Amino acid sequence: MYFIGVDIGGMSVKAGLVDEKGNILLKDTAVTRARASAEEIVADIAALVKKVVEAGGIHLSELGGIGVGSPGSVDDAAGVIRYSCNINFERTPIVALLGDALGVKNVKVSNDANCAALGETMFGAGRGAKNSVTVTLGTGVGTGIVVDGRLLTGNRSAGAEGGHVIIKAGGEKCGCGKRGCFEAYASATALMSRTARAVERHPESLLAQVAKERGIDGKTAFIAAKQGDKTAKRVVNDYIRYVGIGLVGFANVFYPEVFIIGGGISKEGDALILPLKEFVKKNAYGAEFNPPIDVVAATLGNDAGIIGAAALAM
Amino acid sequence: MYFIGVDIGGMSVKAGLVDEKGNILLKDTAVTRARASAEEIVADIAALVKKVVEAGGIHLSELGGIGVGSPGSVDDAAGVIRYSCNINFERTPIVALLGDALGVKNVKVSNDANCAALGETMFGAGRGAKNSVTVTLGTGVGTGIVVDGRLLTGNRSAGAEGGHVIIKAGGEKCGCGKRGCFEAYASATALMSRTARAVERHPESLLAQVAKERGIDGKTAFIAAKQGDKTAKRVVNDYIRYVGIGLVGFANVFYPEVFIIGGGISKEGDALILPLKEFVKKNAYGAEFNPPIDVVAATLGNDAGIIGAAALAM
Repeated sequence: MYFIGVDIGGMSVKAGLVDEKGNILLKDTAVTRARASAEEIVADIAALVKKVVEAGGIHLSELGGIGVGSPGSVDDAAGVIRYSCNINFERTPIVALLGDALGVKNVKVSNDANCAALGETMFGAGRGAKNSVTVTLGTGVGTGIVVDGRLLTGNRSAGAEGGHVIIKAGGEKCGCGKRGCFEAYASATALMSRTARAVERHPESLLAQVAKERGIDGKTAFIAAKQGDKTAKRVVNDYIRYVGIGLVGFANVFYPEVFIIGGGISKEGDALILPLKEFVKKNAYGAEFNPPIDVVAATLGNDAGIIGAAALAM
Repeated sequence: MYFIGVDIGGMSVKAGLVDEKGNILLKDTAVTRARASAEEIVADIAALVKKVVEAGGIHLSELGGIGVGSPGSVDDAAGVIRYSCNINFERTPIVALLGDALGVKNVKVSNDANCAALGETMFGAGRGAKNSVTVTLGTGVGTGIVVDGRLLTGNRSAGAEGGHVIIKAGGEKCGCGKRGCFEAYASATALMSRTARAVERHPESLLAQVAKERGIDGKTAFIAAKQGDKTAKRVVNDYIRYVGIGLVGFANVFYPEVFIIGGGISKEGDALILPLKEFVKKNAYGAEFNPPIDVVAATLGNDAGIIGAAALAM
């Protein structure tokens, strides 16, 4: 059986023909006419889906279903995109619109980060785990939670905003206006601020030199730390500890089989993943009586969105 | 249809005949022979269930099912009580044992706090909510999480230990050995420590006087605060803020319809519940776009365990 996964982005829409094992057989993209009407955008998506299905040599009627991942606030159960900052969706009943346009009954929608988490869990780094928490360490911190093989999105899909769980009451200011959110400590942005502060305080450090040479981004501290710089090591260790504290919080609520770490910072690989695994093992409640929780880096990259969207419909 | 709810405690086992609406039609108790063998304890429970069913004038074969709530670590899916500090259970397959002893097929087990949360959600303060988080503010802090009408217990039922989510990295020491846990700020024990510290620092306060008269417990600060004492108000406000920070964390993950507050501290009623509701409204992520989250005090009292255990089997 074949499925279509649609990954809507601010610049382009990607659609892929996906088999039951999560393999993308072929994919195609179209420009997102972000300022066109919602109906026009959906018509573009429908046309793209048709194109992909035809290129695959099958008929729409043979599809097992279509899954759609969209940025913004999505009401999964209602099949509605409530709003999206960069695309002209507002209370857009995308499931009904797309289903009608294509004559396909099984159409599902969720937030794009949730789709990526589902894709990684079922077919990527999670390798079929039933319970996972995917944490995306990027400009912000996104979370996607899978419980018993299904996405947990909260009442009216308003939950799963794990980046805004408070891990340090009264702590650093977060972009959301509150203090002490996980995101204010675990995002790439937070790591960059910490790096910048350390550079200022320790102009003599190798970290400062690396920062001067290549600028400050999410990699700077990791690069200098690998070369043994103490200042950089402190920045990296603090950062990992805070990420770990967030993971432990999720562990104590969900006790997932696996944490999947995505986003730019996840490219640091073992330098990030191994100490995180150790931290979770040491600090998760009841870890001494329970099976260990694995921590792995995401593996599907940009395809996670398409595969996960398709998985929504499986 | 009738169900049996069994609530195992360290001192006594309670069993109730419960209808589909969560009403307890009759109940009975037996002494828990905590140091007898697990088989003997289960035999006692079976005898108690038989007694209750017979007193109800029905036959075991007419039961819709039996639910059991037990203290300790329970593997819900396997139907096994892994261990319990105060009762002689160790990897006790209670579902199989009790089912065989009584010839009843539908037997379920969960942790007692989870059962209480399910009972309150379906038939108590939650009044049929589909998504709830029950937070019990007692000696420790327990959590019970209901998602889509079902208990969320995590992989191998090792989760839902929300008392040990870290809300203040590097903060107060918790009984579990870690720092900054929700429990270290929101338990009655934490409130008592805060009260004691405030009394020491402000011997001139009304709080100190109240403490002298009646000793320090979870009520002391609330009593003095109601009489307008500034020191007591600060203690209470700080306490409520920390409870609120924990709730906001759960809100951002689950966005439940309702928070149900149980445990001794919940008896403070509006003095606790109203400011918590306000705090959650102000601080939950996306609360301005989403339906408000209710905060209510638990209403079923000691019956929550029986009713919730019965609800497990519904």
